Amino acid sequence: MYRPEIKVVDCTIRDGGLMNNSRFPLKTVRKVYESVCASGVDYVELGYRNSKEMFSTDEYGPWRFCDEDNLRAAVDGIDPGTTKVAIMQDAHKAIAEDILPAEESVVSLIRIATYVKDVDKAIHLANNATNKGYDCTVNIMAISREGSPFLDEALEQIEAETKALAVYVVDSYGALYSEEVHFLVEKYQMYVKTKEVGGHFHNSQQLAFANTIESIIKGANYVDGTLMGLGRGAGNCPLELLLGFLKNPKFKIRPLLDAIQTVIVPLQKELAWGYHIPYMVMGLMNQHPRDAMKWMAGENRADLVEFFRQVTEAYGE
Amino acid sequence: MYRPEIKVVDCTIRDGGLMNNSRFPLKTVRKVYESVCASGVDYVELGYRNSKEMFSTDEYGPWRFCDEDNLRAAVDGIDPGTTKVAIMQDAHKAIAEDILPAEESVVSLIRIATYVKDVDKAIHLANNATNKGYDCTVNIMAISREGSPFLDEALEQIEAETKALAVYVVDSYGALYSEEVHFLVEKYQMYVKTKEVGGHFHNSQQLAFANTIESIIKGANYVDGTLMGLGRGAGNCPLELLLGFLKNPKFKIRPLLDAIQTVIVPLQKELAWGYHIPYMVMGLMNQHPRDAMKWMAGENRADLVEFFRQVTEAYGE
Repeated sequence: MYRPEIKVVDCTIRDGGLMNNSRFPLKTVRKVYESVCASGVDYVELGYRNSKEMFSTDEYGPWRFCDEDNLRAAVDGIDPGTTKVAIMQDAHKAIAEDILPAEESVVSLIRIATYVKDVDKAIHLANNATNKGYDCTVNIMAISREGSPFLDEALEQIEAETKALAVYVVDSYGALYSEEVHFLVEKYQMYVKTKEVGGHFHNSQQLAFANTIESIIKGANYVDGTLMGLGRGAGNCPLELLLGFLKNPKFKIRPLLDAIQTVIVPLQKELAWGYHIPYMVMGLMNQHPRDAMKWMAGENRADLVEFFRQVTEAYGE
Repeated sequence: MYRPEIKVVDCTIRDGGLMNNSRFPLKTVRKVYESVCASGVDYVELGYRNSKEMFSTDEYGPWRFCDEDNLRAAVDGIDPGTTKVAIMQDAHKAIAEDILPAEESVVSLIRIATYVKDVDKAIHLANNATNKGYDCTVNIMAISREGSPFLDEALEQIEAETKALAVYVVDSYGALYSEEVHFLVEKYQMYVKTKEVGGHFHNSQQLAFANTIESIIKGANYVDGTLMGLGRGAGNCPLELLLGFLKNPKFKIRPLLDAIQTVIVPLQKELAWGYHIPYMVMGLMNQHPRDAMKWMAGENRADLVEFFRQVTEAYGE
């Protein structure tokens, strides 16, 4: 019934950090880490290791930088079980020198997020991670806006020039329908012969979980989820739904519910992720959710018709 | 790009009425009706015409019975455009005598909801509707719990013995994954040669919109949605998402957003539809959402771990 090759990555703190500038209290990060470890999920991504030259440490919290001492404070004294720690570097916002040798770090997996145009930077960071002793993946963002020939070339390069475990389809805009997911996973598989395909989907159109399933059906073996879908804009594939679908007996839903009721549901009072019309409209228009996030934070947020008017004027209906 | 045969049914008031005993103010019903008509959606279902012998008129509001004078009050003075009025009868909770001749009614379409075990009652009500001059559909509920040979026999009977326009796959429990939707639509098509297949999906696992798409891909031509997904438990396929997917230029999203911001978003203060862990758990377990709805109305509603414990004890993990 289940496919044991499938690896699940929790990215609650990392993607959720895009809703609060990565300002989670240590207690929240420890609870998420503890519950994900207890659930048997393969990786838990605790944030970005992006550059302090590009992000202000006043404006952004510790999980945008994931200094080693902060990571140690997050995991200290908690039984990891079989769960490993991941962090993310943005190809255009991170530097190789911020990565310690793996033997000095609690991190196992470094995920490099990139646009197609930045693939050479991504390959540099991926090989830096490999050379320092980490596993790595390359996650191609905004995939609903990428196409031939540059995407194909990027996939060829990543296949030939890196030792990444997986190359991800990342639907940053929550714009993809199932047939496009099928198409993209199959396209990746044409180029990426020695690596796995991964899937990371946003929920702008309530399709993050569905698209994750569709990527799995086509053979993707690295898939992402977050607790209750916490993540940028409408959020991500809910991890608890994903484990329910996967059926692998090593996965447990109950520990996730403990973290959800303790630290995630309370966040709903301050962070407006989930299904909201402004996010939906941006997903439908294949646009970055930033305009919707700005609208949601404004005084006029309840005027959905006016938001629709403005964005159809800006981007076409 | 689009398939002109596809008919869309809004069932905001009908399915949403399962969250408030069909007690919508007339003003709300008129606003929904007006906006759905302006959007170009094919049908708007204004409630049930169920029996006053089986439902107390003290406990249930007017849209559980849809008396003709209440329907007229809902539609009076509003330009219907090309939109027609639908109502629903439950096969086991409605009687044929409550249906007037079509020429005395504002209703065009009567949808008969049934379990497989009640198919003979459903056929009786469907033929009653046909004989009185209405179009009708037969909607087979709780389909995730039905299987061969009784489902097959029911489909053969509906095909042979009724003039229904469509026979629906109704995922009342929000339990189906895409491969099951494909299987069921294809099974229906084997038996239902002279009628269309329809799809109505619940959102317990955030798959209502995705499953609607999957049913369309397999050929379903009658599909349901509700404003912002308002409906029992986690709710339904959001109509605004569905119109965005369908691309038919006759459909307009903007009027729907007007009703959403005016009368639907305000309902979120009193009605807890949408993604909530208790509904998700019941969907995952292929169970009716009633236990989750009871839990959500109770004082202990925030204790998700305890809810999970109780239902896994009751139904198995």
